[in-house]
Amino acid sequence: MLEMQDCPFTFSVSLSGGRPTQYDHHITRALSAMHGQYADQQAYAALLDQGDKVIYEVYEIKRPEVAGELPHGVSIVHPGKVGNEYFMTKGHFHAELETAEVYYCLQGTGVMVMETPEGEWSVQDLRPGQVLYVPPRWAHRSVNTGDEDLVMLYVYPGHSGHNYAAIERQGFRKLVVEHNSQPAIVDNPRWRPPGQDLPESF
Amino acid sequence: MLEMQDCPFTFSVSLSGGRPTQYDHHITRALSAMHGQYADQQAYAALLDQGDKVIYEVYEIKRPEVAGELPHGVSIVHPGKVGNEYFMTKGHFHAELETAEVYYCLQGTGVMVMETPEGEWSVQDLRPGQVLYVPPRWAHRSVNTGDEDLVMLYVYPGHSGHNYAAIERQGFRKLVVEHNSQPAIVDNPRWRPPGQDLPESF
Repeated sequence: MLEMQDCPFTFSVSLSGGRPTQYDHHITRALSAMHGQYADQQAYAALLDQGDKVIYEVYEIKRPEVAGELPHGVSIVHPGKVGNEYFMTKGHFHAELETAEVYYCLQGTGVMVMETPEGEWSVQDLRPGQVLYVPPRWAHRSVNTGDEDLVMLYVYPGHSGHNYAAIERQGFRKLVVEHNSQPAIVDNPRWRPPGQDLPESF
Repeated sequence: MLEMQDCPFTFSVSLSGGRPTQYDHHITRALSAMHGQYADQQAYAALLDQGDKVIYEVYEIKRPEVAGELPHGVSIVHPGKVGNEYFMTKGHFHAELETAEVYYCLQGTGVMVMETPEGEWSVQDLRPGQVLYVPPRWAHRSVNTGDEDLVMLYVYPGHSGHNYAAIERQGFRKLVVEHNSQPAIVDNPRWRPPGQDLPESF
């Protein structure tokens, strides 16, 4: 059982590298954990053959899973591409759909790819000094479109939870790929409107 | 009725000055709004005679007042002193006591003065790159102990509300004053333990 502090506390976030001076949990997601997430499966297999690279890391301050608490931390997406698709997080809905999230970009360049269960979508730019509000109902994935780490501070309500299943099944409606040396938003061929799941054999 | 965005949005916080590029509400608190908050009432009256200076400002992004939303914004406490007591915010409990708040310090130097209804207290340093967690139940007041603006990003749960009354009555248990050119934490002579209110004539 994790010991959580009942008293106020501070920690600092390094402005070079993003590793905070205090955290409860350090999550690293390697390329092998992103199976099926990148459109170009051949490029994925070829890159994995070169080693199981770390794609992103999260340093989390845990808090009790109740509405008045605010779990928070730092996420770091490393730069790189699988084929022409940029390194990104798995992305998720909150299990309690009616919960928001606030991001503050500390370093790097990227976008947040978002969508609702009804299929609305939004892609918002991230650069240092930028605050992003992800309203309740919006699934979110961060994508590093630059050459250095994309480092963000995040805060979400304690009762949010995480739902990765919907995104793991078919990804987000939009992909972010490099096109003529620039990020471009393209349709995800695997995505289907709500209720129209892919055939099992896909 | 304020129009709130249902779609994701971003805005940036100037790293010189702190004024965000988007906000719904700009609050300014002048010296006259701080009546009774500073220990040295003569110094307060003398400073007020010189003009009704702005002590702090808040740029707020409003959100619906429900648990899953996250109102957020930027607070700016200007530098200065009333007697030997530093410029500070009024400070408050959340009306819904079991709600937290996260601060991220962007600029300046200061402290957060905090206490619980039971009389526990905490004073935490603030400097750029520092994250501060104010757990549920802790009243909080930011104090600028430096020579430039103290600029912070803040996030709190939508159902928090604000309770200024308890703090307005007797202040926080601790004051932050300049002593030998350094910030020092001293007892507030007006403060009384819970249940022991001041006599009406005080």
